[in-house]
Amino acid sequence: MSNHSQPIDQLAVNTIRMLSIDAVEKAKSGHPGMPMGAAPMAYALWARFMKHNPTNPDWFDRDRFILSAGHGSALLYSLLHLFGYGLSMEELKNFRQWGSKTPGHPEANHGTPGVEATTGPLGQGISNAVGMAMAEAHLAARFNRDGFPVIDHYTYTICSDGDLMEGVSAEAASLAGHLQLGKLIALYDSNDISLDGQLAEAFTEDVQKRFESYGWEVIRVEDGNNLEAIQGAIQKARAETTKPTLIEVKTVIGYGSPNLAGTHKIHGAPFGPEEREEVRRAYGWEGEEAFHVPQEAREHFNRFKEEGDRAEKEWNALFEGYKKEHPELARQLEEAISGKLPKDWDEKLPAYRAGDKAIATRAASGEALNALAEKVPALFGGSADLASSNKTNLNGEEVFHAENYAGRNVWFGVREHAMGAALNGLMLHGGVRAFGATFLVFSDYLRPAVRLAALSKLPVLYVFTHDSISVGEDGPTHEPVEQVPALRLIPNLKVFRPGDANETVAAYRFAMNHNEGPVALALSRQNLPILEGTAEQIKEGAQKGGYILADADGGNPDVILIATGSELSLAVEAKGKLKEQGVNARVVSMPCRELFYEQSEVYRETVLPSSVGARVAIEAAHPAGWEKAVGSAGTIIGIDTFGASAPGGLVMEKYGFHVENVIEKVKQVLNK
Amino acid sequence: MSNHSQPIDQLAVNTIRMLSIDAVEKAKSGHPGMPMGAAPMAYALWARFMKHNPTNPDWFDRDRFILSAGHGSALLYSLLHLFGYGLSMEELKNFRQWGSKTPGHPEANHGTPGVEATTGPLGQGISNAVGMAMAEAHLAARFNRDGFPVIDHYTYTICSDGDLMEGVSAEAASLAGHLQLGKLIALYDSNDISLDGQLAEAFTEDVQKRFESYGWEVIRVEDGNNLEAIQGAIQKARAETTKPTLIEVKTVIGYGSPNLAGTHKIHGAPFGPEEREEVRRAYGWEGEEAFHVPQEAREHFNRFKEEGDRAEKEWNALFEGYKKEHPELARQLEEAISGKLPKDWDEKLPAYRAGDKAIATRAASGEALNALAEKVPALFGGSADLASSNKTNLNGEEVFHAENYAGRNVWFGVREHAMGAALNGLMLHGGVRAFGATFLVFSDYLRPAVRLAALSKLPVLYVFTHDSISVGEDGPTHEPVEQVPALRLIPNLKVFRPGDANETVAAYRFAMNHNEGPVALALSRQNLPILEGTAEQIKEGAQKGGYILADADGGNPDVILIATGSELSLAVEAKGKLKEQGVNARVVSMPCRELFYEQSEVYRETVLPSSVGARVAIEAAHPAGWEKAVGSAGTIIGIDTFGASAPGGLVMEKYGFHVENVIEKVKQVLNK
Repeated sequence: MSNHSQPIDQLAVNTIRMLSIDAVEKAKSGHPGMPMGAAPMAYALWARFMKHNPTNPDWFDRDRFILSAGHGSALLYSLLHLFGYGLSMEELKNFRQWGSKTPGHPEANHGTPGVEATTGPLGQGISNAVGMAMAEAHLAARFNRDGFPVIDHYTYTICSDGDLMEGVSAEAASLAGHLQLGKLIALYDSNDISLDGQLAEAFTEDVQKRFESYGWEVIRVEDGNNLEAIQGAIQKARAETTKPTLIEVKTVIGYGSPNLAGTHKIHGAPFGPEEREEVRRAYGWEGEEAFHVPQEAREHFNRFKEEGDRAEKEWNALFEGYKKEHPELARQLEEAISGKLPKDWDEKLPAYRAGDKAIATRAASGEALNALAEKVPALFGGSADLASSNKTNLNGEEVFHAENYAGRNVWFGVREHAMGAALNGLMLHGGVRAFGATFLVFSDYLRPAVRLAALSKLPVLYVFTHDSISVGEDGPTHEPVEQVPALRLIPNLKVFRPGDANETVAAYRFAMNHNEGPVALALSRQNLPILEGTAEQIKEGAQKGGYILADADGGNPDVILIATGSELSLAVEAKGKLKEQGVNARVVSMPCRELFYEQSEVYRETVLPSSVGARVAIEAAHPAGWEKAVGSAGTIIGIDTFGASAPGGLVMEKYGFHVENVIEKVKQVLNK
Repeated sequence: MSNHSQPIDQLAVNTIRMLSIDAVEKAKSGHPGMPMGAAPMAYALWARFMKHNPTNPDWFDRDRFILSAGHGSALLYSLLHLFGYGLSMEELKNFRQWGSKTPGHPEANHGTPGVEATTGPLGQGISNAVGMAMAEAHLAARFNRDGFPVIDHYTYTICSDGDLMEGVSAEAASLAGHLQLGKLIALYDSNDISLDGQLAEAFTEDVQKRFESYGWEVIRVEDGNNLEAIQGAIQKARAETTKPTLIEVKTVIGYGSPNLAGTHKIHGAPFGPEEREEVRRAYGWEGEEAFHVPQEAREHFNRFKEEGDRAEKEWNALFEGYKKEHPELARQLEEAISGKLPKDWDEKLPAYRAGDKAIATRAASGEALNALAEKVPALFGGSADLASSNKTNLNGEEVFHAENYAGRNVWFGVREHAMGAALNGLMLHGGVRAFGATFLVFSDYLRPAVRLAALSKLPVLYVFTHDSISVGEDGPTHEPVEQVPALRLIPNLKVFRPGDANETVAAYRFAMNHNEGPVALALSRQNLPILEGTAEQIKEGAQKGGYILADADGGNPDVILIATGSELSLAVEAKGKLKEQGVNARVVSMPCRELFYEQSEVYRETVLPSSVGARVAIEAAHPAGWEKAVGSAGTIIGIDTFGASAPGGLVMEKYGFHVENVIEKVKQVLNK
């Protein structure tokens, strides 16, 4: 880490700037202003502090860096290219083009080496960073031993005014302050400009005071071009070990542009060859051609690559010693890092016998979660102040807080959105298997974070309880109607609505084995009977998303009843009544519809044979989405209005979720 | 307003408490702890400050009161009953029962007199209050004249720890401070307990400092049972005219319960007859029977009703004078209050001729909005820092800010969720017609507020631009795929995805005439051609949600193409190509599917005759929801994965939105 800036540093900063500008110019699309203003802080951080090994972006003990202001992606790509992450010049030239590794906003798990998080939707990145710092603190507490700080890294983020205006970042910052995450350092690119113009037209709060109120250290750097000042601030931030730090760095958006610097016009569009030429002159930049990297700068950047390699080698040596000294811990840590499950992970998972005492699926979920927690030490999470209702407390485990980062029960507070974003950060960091919980109706509060989990292919687990209008007395504000169907629309998210305790266990089994994206559970508040046949299907049909729970005599149904969640027992009951009336019904349970439609056509045909057009789907949720399963000849019992406040059983009756209505609908379908 | 508390005041407070307790006990469900702790502040506010007329809850210049901590609904219902709003004792006894006016959480427009907002989802109520205070400030600036303060009232709210942990309230509080809304006063029921236990386990920030950072005045009342202290604080808050005020009132949850006070056990459940008896004794309460109101208390409360009646009469006299002095202003104000449109409201609305220059529907939206703004002075709103992209600026109109509350362009900042909640507050207040804008993909950020607009039947208008994967270079983080289908799932929300500029005008026409719920527009970033036939349908088919845009020869189609938004022109193009190949296609435009399905079966049959099973729906969004329209024989061209970063036209091509693919799908359908 050098102490005083040399001309080479300025050249390096300008190299970052010009590459970013040229990427945007070539794409004729993008955001040049942010990289031009923020390049010095990014450079100071990466060149003088970041512990990372560009040759191995996956080195576990690396510092994490998130560009929360994701619209400045060109800055990140320029850094990754120059610092030797193997992001080629060709990729920079393909910025924002089809099939490139340099999409408009950074995307994690998109194949771009060194991109730690998907950002762009404002407020998410800094909130992911909170989750990452939580993961670091937790793993350090669990695994570090005297002389062996095997987990010891910082989480850095560069965020914008826009990030700090978002509620999600406010929640996350409050949580980070509460948790005293001293190794979280946010550089705030404070340029007084937002997309629509002067920031002061919309945002005049005292950011420093606000972050202090959360328990953060706040440092201000008056000149965002002063590398020494930035360096000093980061040093100070690192020295503050019990508070996260916000470093407000005053910058000029589009710094160096004679005509556009400091205006919102440079925020979100390329500025054309003439202005590029003026900027080039203002920087004293030699490259008239685009994408020029001076030889001197190239050599300068290459040195950091070597430094990184050395750093990882040192850590590897440390870890070898740790392995000898603490073999079992080392094994556990390696397992946690690998993301693989212990061999006996499912040993304690419960199974329930038909006819056993009825149990709410949220309660079964609590049992499953606890059974997993015993065997999967990486399991880590909690609820947004509803643990007692969501049944997500890990019994016998401690609370994760500043005095005890080894605790595995996280109290997220009434901060659903920050919880969602922190869960993403936890999974992006690795070493933990993260879950979060709230009422299903409030899944809307964290939906933007769920979307990013799905887009980033993160296996986050959401425990959403208090499903459907069965919630009852709390009324329509608390009764999900459209949430399950709306969650099903998010690409790459799997939504399970289990029909009883066994299907709940099946959902957990699926979720733990699923590493390609998030899983959401929709669980009942009310008790549900244990159904005949579900126990046998935990590892079978339920893993396929849908299966025949109770077949018609001779496997030859007059009608197929398709149901999920609390309506599964209703379908079974209706089947019995129908039989008395001479109607031969098959009951298909479909706890995860998306998954069912991923099965082979052959399998689907065995469950829903095309020869049987008489079908009734029953689900206490908005009916949209069941049309495909029931076909033109079938019908759906659903709810396309809001619920109502009254005892849950009565609300269900009133909305048609009772045997008589199912039978009536079956008859209508049969008479079609 | 009395100055010193008398025994009668204590009796009144205990009456509120006991009614709340008894309502929860009878319902065997609800939240007794909050009313027990917060009754004194509610009483102090209502008895000593609130300007309202219980006999006429709609009196426009009344103070507004929102119970943001909506789980304490029993408190609000008790107040409404006792202060004479005509909420009967029978209704209190029917708390949380089917068909009652006393649902589990307060619901606006549910027929409960005096309920100003639907609350319960935390953070929403206090954010609605910000919108209400904005409405008051705006109308006062526009209509008050020397000697005629016809708009002059406060907005009060009681909020909880949970409300203040939510990001939406953080955004809203920042906005309120920025706007210097001096007549907004929030009483913070600070009881150190959250649902899961001690608040300090999750929330240790310095709330006072945080609100000061937003530009709020913060006052602390140490003893929430001290009516004088509360009264003094409210007086001080009212005297502070350029800052909103947060009064932190320290309370004990479940105050008076010998065994449960101060614990989370009293938060969300009735505590049973034994504890009720102990509480009764602790209060020295005479009523052994439930729902007792001492005669003395009854008479005491009745006096406020008379005061309220007098207050409104005074205002009526003031308004009569105003009418004489400022007849045109008075007419405008009456019109604004009525929520009715001026006669010539649509006079300036544009129409576009087929073949005119292609125009993005966001740009057409900007033209329509401006045309309306000229004629509808109540139109008021703005964007979450994307006005220049959303095209929502009202040209020639000023910005709404502290120095100029008469401005009609609101800069919400990057605070989508607070915008959503403030829009609800604006419409709940009345006198304005509120709209808000952001990118469609970020509709997720305000979804919880959209849901409440729909549930509360508020005609909020959402201008969501940058529809679909056509957004292009910004990539999947900014490309809505599931948002339009997910919005369609919200009961009582109408979603328009107009196919060209004329259909955009049609959507505005519908929205302005629609008073029963919110309307969301999904608008294109890219230019779309003006199609043959849309101009004629602005007041016709487009108002029905779906219509025949271009019919097959002889009205006898081989296939029906159903399309919305940017895919409408694709359908028209495909129709032409199909004709060359001897296939006779009808193009059905369906800008608002929900609306189409509200039409008569006869109408729907003329548009989508059952005799034509060959149907292809084309929409650049998740396909779920089109199954009904296309039937088993049809198919859907949609997107069930995330988008990609590349020029928008190319992304559309790659995802199958081109003529050849439409033709291929038509052929598949015809060969089925």
